[in-house]
Amino acid sequence: MKIAPATVVIENVSPLVDAGRYPIKRVIGEVIQVEADIFKDGHDALSARLKWRKVGDSVWSETPMHPHPWGNERWTGQFEVKENAAHEFTIEAWGDFWKSWLHEWEAKFAAPLDDLKSEMLEGAAFIEVSAAIATKAKKKTDADKLKAFAKKFTKATPTAVNEIVHDAVLNGLMATYSDRSMSSEFMLGFADTTELFPVKAKADLRYPRVWVDRAAAGFSAWYEFFPRSAEGLANRGSKFRDCVARVEDAKAMGFDVVYFPPIHPIGITARKGRNNSLKCDPCEPGVPYAIGNIHQSCPNGGGHKDVAPELGTLEDFQWLVGEIHKCEMEVALDFALNCSPDHPYVRDHPEWFFKRPDGTIKYAENPPKKYQDVYPLNYHNENWRALWDELTSVIEFWCEQGVRIFRVDNPHTKPIHFWEYMICKVQAKWPNTIFLSEAFTRPKVMRALAKVGYTQSYTYFTWRNSKSGLTEYFNELAHSESAEIMRPNLWPNTPDILPSYLQFGGRPAFMVRTILATTLAPIYGIYSGFELCENEGVAKNSWNPAADVRRFLEICDGDYRLLAREEYLDSEKYQFKARNWNAPDNIKPFITRLNAIRRTNPALQHLRNLHFCAADNDLVLAYSKSEGTNHLLIIVSLDAWHTQDAFVEVPLERFGLAEDQPYVVEDLLNDERYTWKGRRNFVRLFPESKPGHILRVVQ
Amino acid sequence: MKIAPATVVIENVSPLVDAGRYPIKRVIGEVIQVEADIFKDGHDALSARLKWRKVGDSVWSETPMHPHPWGNERWTGQFEVKENAAHEFTIEAWGDFWKSWLHEWEAKFAAPLDDLKSEMLEGAAFIEVSAAIATKAKKKTDADKLKAFAKKFTKATPTAVNEIVHDAVLNGLMATYSDRSMSSEFMLGFADTTELFPVKAKADLRYPRVWVDRAAAGFSAWYEFFPRSAEGLANRGSKFRDCVARVEDAKAMGFDVVYFPPIHPIGITARKGRNNSLKCDPCEPGVPYAIGNIHQSCPNGGGHKDVAPELGTLEDFQWLVGEIHKCEMEVALDFALNCSPDHPYVRDHPEWFFKRPDGTIKYAENPPKKYQDVYPLNYHNENWRALWDELTSVIEFWCEQGVRIFRVDNPHTKPIHFWEYMICKVQAKWPNTIFLSEAFTRPKVMRALAKVGYTQSYTYFTWRNSKSGLTEYFNELAHSESAEIMRPNLWPNTPDILPSYLQFGGRPAFMVRTILATTLAPIYGIYSGFELCENEGVAKNSWNPAADVRRFLEICDGDYRLLAREEYLDSEKYQFKARNWNAPDNIKPFITRLNAIRRTNPALQHLRNLHFCAADNDLVLAYSKSEGTNHLLIIVSLDAWHTQDAFVEVPLERFGLAEDQPYVVEDLLNDERYTWKGRRNFVRLFPESKPGHILRVVQ
Repeated sequence: MKIAPATVVIENVSPLVDAGRYPIKRVIGEVIQVEADIFKDGHDALSARLKWRKVGDSVWSETPMHPHPWGNERWTGQFEVKENAAHEFTIEAWGDFWKSWLHEWEAKFAAPLDDLKSEMLEGAAFIEVSAAIATKAKKKTDADKLKAFAKKFTKATPTAVNEIVHDAVLNGLMATYSDRSMSSEFMLGFADTTELFPVKAKADLRYPRVWVDRAAAGFSAWYEFFPRSAEGLANRGSKFRDCVARVEDAKAMGFDVVYFPPIHPIGITARKGRNNSLKCDPCEPGVPYAIGNIHQSCPNGGGHKDVAPELGTLEDFQWLVGEIHKCEMEVALDFALNCSPDHPYVRDHPEWFFKRPDGTIKYAENPPKKYQDVYPLNYHNENWRALWDELTSVIEFWCEQGVRIFRVDNPHTKPIHFWEYMICKVQAKWPNTIFLSEAFTRPKVMRALAKVGYTQSYTYFTWRNSKSGLTEYFNELAHSESAEIMRPNLWPNTPDILPSYLQFGGRPAFMVRTILATTLAPIYGIYSGFELCENEGVAKNSWNPAADVRRFLEICDGDYRLLAREEYLDSEKYQFKARNWNAPDNIKPFITRLNAIRRTNPALQHLRNLHFCAADNDLVLAYSKSEGTNHLLIIVSLDAWHTQDAFVEVPLERFGLAEDQPYVVEDLLNDERYTWKGRRNFVRLFPESKPGHILRVVQ
Repeated sequence: MKIAPATVVIENVSPLVDAGRYPIKRVIGEVIQVEADIFKDGHDALSARLKWRKVGDSVWSETPMHPHPWGNERWTGQFEVKENAAHEFTIEAWGDFWKSWLHEWEAKFAAPLDDLKSEMLEGAAFIEVSAAIATKAKKKTDADKLKAFAKKFTKATPTAVNEIVHDAVLNGLMATYSDRSMSSEFMLGFADTTELFPVKAKADLRYPRVWVDRAAAGFSAWYEFFPRSAEGLANRGSKFRDCVARVEDAKAMGFDVVYFPPIHPIGITARKGRNNSLKCDPCEPGVPYAIGNIHQSCPNGGGHKDVAPELGTLEDFQWLVGEIHKCEMEVALDFALNCSPDHPYVRDHPEWFFKRPDGTIKYAENPPKKYQDVYPLNYHNENWRALWDELTSVIEFWCEQGVRIFRVDNPHTKPIHFWEYMICKVQAKWPNTIFLSEAFTRPKVMRALAKVGYTQSYTYFTWRNSKSGLTEYFNELAHSESAEIMRPNLWPNTPDILPSYLQFGGRPAFMVRTILATTLAPIYGIYSGFELCENEGVAKNSWNPAADVRRFLEICDGDYRLLAREEYLDSEKYQFKARNWNAPDNIKPFITRLNAIRRTNPALQHLRNLHFCAADNDLVLAYSKSEGTNHLLIIVSLDAWHTQDAFVEVPLERFGLAEDQPYVVEDLLNDERYTWKGRRNFVRLFPESKPGHILRVVQ
């Protein structure tokens, strides 16, 4: 640790989130472009290195930083992250004695002065210092070379020295073994200006961090189904051992993740019946989100670490996880922190809940609604640490069963810092754990959850249907500070949300939303039934979207409650559900094709490469994605009712195309090829047969 | 100290500079508008307080914060600073049990439910908690009132309770004695996410700071003169005892600060002669910036803590300071960290300097130029602390002589963190010390010096002459983050800089620059001779500005070296200077009037109230300043050669004027009055007689 004042100012560093309070996020193989203002007093030449390492490692990797061509003290450098772990980075910068000497030498030599002897001796001394650094680094050959240069300096004429000073080998070695004894390093935290700040110990400060996830955290396709609905039977539920066909179907469609709503014992007290009824027949299965049941014979205690006996045993679940892994898929579990009155926590830890004045435990309310089937937890109770640790141990329990993906239910109604606590602890042990935040809430709360550690986030995509709505929102997701921390996982439907666009638009609407979900962002998911275009909600107003599609899309993005209620009719949340998984008019082949396109086109596996393109029709959305030589232009009609034409602007420079040369684009949805020329090209889209193009530029 | 996790997120706090690394600056009486994103999980109602105190005090002052009307989690509050000292502020926010209960109560009461008994008991319990808080605060009357309310709750009907819950007294008391046991507080610094961050001790963190200066730091007029030139004699220098007439003249013109270039012993070795000549006659006085002389009989050691014997003794200086104070003025000294080879540091601390290979001390160079009369200090030498403390003690020495203002020469060529170290130490002892940074350097370096503690800064005003140049730059100074830390001190000339605009434009140009300097910012200064319109430089190219004034102003703002060299001919930096301080055609009455206008018009005593107004002539600059009922519209012709007309847009809403009512404006420069109406009004400006208006709206 250096006890000396900083020599160089390093500030305005990016990317940092909240001044470094939270790590930025990347997946393995991604590059981090770092910028900073770097300057010092006076006129010394500067050198700077970007350094990075895994948190806990002692040795840094490093790469030179370079000043921006447009100056203003801005420097830049980049590094790639290669491991699923927390990383840290910093910048080391210093007044470069050799480079400064060289500038002075050039000025002095150009203006022939009397005597350059002293200057030559000074230069030789700097070379000797670097030789000593090389020696210390056990680079004898380099040290010897440097010593030889130094010797020449002391004996040659100024003219001869002037040739040596520009020698590439010498300057390369002087950069490699640059004297950093006076360097400064960027750290987060604050020097205390009321004290003698320069001697502040490094231990009080910290480096900026990058949390690096495995690749699947940034690119995957999710398929959600209720295990009890696996066989689609109206009169009884399926068990874990009945789920393989559904898993294989998801695999055939090209999904990577099978996501199950809660699989835990369901409470009996105040159990809800079909269509959220307060009355419940004894034969009804209950809502999987009312978790916990100690009344039944639940071998593992009946809470969040147990499975519902009607689905099978923990061994059955482990078997199913194995089958899913055999398909090269993963399982995602729901983490819903709801306790039914029958949850073992209620019996064992009444202090973890809120009490009413009469001493009974408070049930959940959203006045005037009462939810007697759920008791909310008091996260800030006096024994908060015991509760937080117990909830953390739930995730750890399922990690031990081989689960590495958790979709978290309503995280915005639990303390934001609880998630930071829990995710930190779990990822310290299993860094490959992925957490998806289901926070359909206000923007800053949604972003706060991403900042404290959520790997992926549900988004407002579900309610973005118009061209302006989609463009504005996805520009924010892909290009604002949000992209440093929040990975959107796009869901066109969920068990709770059947959007009006799908209710009114039918099959063409499902196709439009599929193209958007699969190509706007690299992560998406569907809730089963979507592939069957299930779209019967509980209540719908009379509207004719076809009469004014623009206005309809606007309402879908805003006051969507004017159009319909979003709940599914006869939702399987509350009941057994009869289904033909191969019902006519399903869009399974369409989904299958899109998932295949995503796999074979790297451009679709990233988010920040999204750029919208002009199209002269506000019902036609166009955007490009490029990765290496994989250039895609996606054009989607947002109109599920009419044919739409548009002239679309092709971003020739992004695609590396000349203004005047013809080029071929191939529609990956139907293998059709078109020869186009120039920037403006014509498309015509049809709701039923061709709602969009995914055009690949054929090289 | 609370060992519990945060319950509320408080982030995106403003104003902070570099995430709170540096304090923001204010003067006594100014208001700080604080904003923050404040939110928590779930749906609890929030309360928030803005709190502030002097650093070192234990008790906070506080005021409620309120949510922005446009939402998005943004809250706002403000406080006024009243003492010349370091202050700190924070935000405390909490889920407000009472307000949350009240919202729930309203919903439940509106939807008549079965039984509200439990709710009433809960409400009563919250009131009891607040009663206990009042009791603890020794507010018995309030506590009793609250207890009475609680009692009513437990006995009344729901309808009766519903009236009580909206009682203003009750709600006022519940706000005053709100239960903050679960509150969160904003602090700078980082919780470590690899540890159990919520138990991080507060000692490791810190509150945002405000450095509060005395009022003169934000509003003053400076007059710079060389003491040796006080009498304006060609053949000999004046002494401290000869300076009173010059001080009284400055006082008569309305200046607040008399600023002296260095008054220390001047080195003899390699002393420069007139016009910066390498040859120097023994009778020549030398450059005051080549400081230090142990060869002469300098009673205090001959360095920075001594005065040049040719000016008198330290007692003489103290006497002069007393005379200046009698005039209700202050003295500013130059802090120029230049050491002549004769400086005592060279003898006593050769380790503080750079060495050449032959063991001699390095003189300053800007290749191919050599400055053998100055030795640069090595601020990062092994004994840096001894050097930094010694240099700090120089300022302390002059503070002890009654000096409280220091103009620092070329601070950008010394380590930026040295200034932070020195200014912190000095202001801890003498908080009323003012430091002016003479950093004519790159923007980020200039700003960095302001951030580390400089009270005021020289600016690029000296080279901003065009309308676009002035508008862009002053919008940045008054309205960007810069305004939180940097106080511009405007100098139309300095001993080193005689701008081309003055060299070419003569007396009208001097008047234009005077109006701009006195009205654009609340702090300005002139280097003596300005009032006499001295404008003979060492070399000038042949240009005719009158032929194309716009182009000329553009060059003045940019490649001004095309026009002239900026040095004064026969500069008094190098020689005795003959002067008639009442030379004909001087603008002393004009300056006197402007200083008087500044004193009587509070609008001119602030910076952030500057707003430019449209004028349909790009040689006419218009801007408004308002403070309370003092509304000014300043209109300046930038053309020193021709008459200029313009229609100027009056900012009626800022002035509180109606669109259709006539109003009277008074020109404070000549007492003329005009009756204007509406937004657009006509002005005609004349270079010699009326280069500008300072119009006050007559109420």
